[in-house]
Amino acid sequence: MKQRITDPSQLFEMAVAGDRGALARLLSLIERGGEDARTIARLTYPKSGSGYTVGITGAPGAGKSTLTSATIGHLRSSDTKVAVLAIDPSSPFTGGAILGDRVRMQDHATDAGVFIRSMATRGHLGGLSLATSEAIHLLDAVGCPWILVETVGVGQVEVEIAGKADTTVVVVNPGWGDSVQANKAGLMEIADIFVINKADRKGADETRRDLEQMLDLSDIGHEDWRPPILQTSAVSGEGVSELWNTVLAHREFIMASGKLAQRRSFRLREELRAIVERRLELRAREICTGEKWDGLEQQVLNHTIDPWAAADDMLKGIGA
Amino acid sequence: MKQRITDPSQLFEMAVAGDRGALARLLSLIERGGEDARTIARLTYPKSGSGYTVGITGAPGAGKSTLTSATIGHLRSSDTKVAVLAIDPSSPFTGGAILGDRVRMQDHATDAGVFIRSMATRGHLGGLSLATSEAIHLLDAVGCPWILVETVGVGQVEVEIAGKADTTVVVVNPGWGDSVQANKAGLMEIADIFVINKADRKGADETRRDLEQMLDLSDIGHEDWRPPILQTSAVSGEGVSELWNTVLAHREFIMASGKLAQRRSFRLREELRAIVERRLELRAREICTGEKWDGLEQQVLNHTIDPWAAADDMLKGIGA
Repeated sequence: MKQRITDPSQLFEMAVAGDRGALARLLSLIERGGEDARTIARLTYPKSGSGYTVGITGAPGAGKSTLTSATIGHLRSSDTKVAVLAIDPSSPFTGGAILGDRVRMQDHATDAGVFIRSMATRGHLGGLSLATSEAIHLLDAVGCPWILVETVGVGQVEVEIAGKADTTVVVVNPGWGDSVQANKAGLMEIADIFVINKADRKGADETRRDLEQMLDLSDIGHEDWRPPILQTSAVSGEGVSELWNTVLAHREFIMASGKLAQRRSFRLREELRAIVERRLELRAREICTGEKWDGLEQQVLNHTIDPWAAADDMLKGIGA
Repeated sequence: MKQRITDPSQLFEMAVAGDRGALARLLSLIERGGEDARTIARLTYPKSGSGYTVGITGAPGAGKSTLTSATIGHLRSSDTKVAVLAIDPSSPFTGGAILGDRVRMQDHATDAGVFIRSMATRGHLGGLSLATSEAIHLLDAVGCPWILVETVGVGQVEVEIAGKADTTVVVVNPGWGDSVQANKAGLMEIADIFVINKADRKGADETRRDLEQMLDLSDIGHEDWRPPILQTSAVSGEGVSELWNTVLAHREFIMASGKLAQRRSFRLREELRAIVERRLELRAREICTGEKWDGLEQQVLNHTIDPWAAADDMLKGIGA
């Protein structure tokens, strides 16, 4: 019986040599977020920077997975390698991720040129956001030239995660208004390319006008790149090759204009800040246990002291 | 010309005496989240605990605001005072809250027995979550017997905020599946009462069966309270008085069973932990500036060191 390898350095070497099982295990360690995740970050970070990430985001049911799957098909027709990270929000209460849509990508499950992986949150979205960055560094470091990151663009943090790509594709449907009401502005802000998927449905022209108008009214696209609005039918594959050509055009534009470097350095700053916060959160969790904590908690519950005073008391010790 | 009062203690005294302007200003200070917010927490915390909060949550477009407005109408018909907090997620990019739905509540704008207030995030959702707790303490401390908290139940953090109530009403529509796909499990977990709003639409019976089945399969409702599933048409007011009677029944149940005390003490613990994290985050923001930080950032951008090593270096000083 083969012994299960768990050492991150050894797994990383294997993954660089093309071992998909090792890559999957590294991603599990990143997802778990402990000391191993940190070791992996140290190994991969210096070797990352040459891969290109394309974000695909939108409301649930917009057809992101089908579109991602069709895009994989398009890339594989020219033998281009591609990795997909599907970020799944999960319930804060049950810890279970909803991975239903993943089945749509099983067409590509046996293709050695495609690597597909779902990532879910354990604990909180801040952790998922950081894990997403680290997973991208890893896929990049093992030599994936294209990394597609599929996310649900619903809540604020989810949109933040969706913004981690070099090129971001926002997928909408005819009559999209209601489902993204809460963060239309956020989605507008991160979109480099709009795709009206299921464009054969009623309302596609209206949705296009709606988007054009929002672009006209916003600050977006008054620079050199106005987000184009494409139409696809991901199920039939219509419009998918045009979409990919537009991704390539956007990539060329941000490379030539220096915006790619700007974008990446901004993202890296955010990541660094997230790491500092994460370290402090872990420290908070350490602090918020023990006898002293229990005593203060009881006093707050009795309304003897207020929560801020209790927090002050706990934090005195660590100079924060 | 009257001088604008900004002292939290004075504003609090005025708010207790019934001054709505003072109350609104206090809520703005809480929303801003600075030192004043902390002073307000110190003032209100010891006086809070007698108000009752009812959360109303669901996907965008489910009719939460209309239902809230109809509930206000029902309460006012028996001259019951009520306060409404409408929590609006805003874009992380533009900082602008989307308050469109608030117009539906303007029927009650001139009624002295009703206090309505929107709260949005400036910065991050963690801050909004804390501000929501503090706003509830304040409304409670100034003597609001009923506090309705309306939230959009989309992302994970949003659902977390929705869980801050004593009784939580989850509003769904016929054919709700798609719009909440990402966090159905989270919504199931926090629901004390389900409302199928727009129940005159096609698919209401199917939605009810769907909910019943999910309740059967889950751990929920195997205790003494199984979340009832009501039907309303908020626009016509149908089912609204039944909804309120069910809220009262749930309240009676959790008071008698000791679950209300449990729930509140759990929430208070979470709040305390959030305050500790918040303090540490503020400390992180202080740390992540200055010459040393700029230098480390540059080294990370040059790939000379990895982000974790840089964070370690910054945090050494504060014992975290």
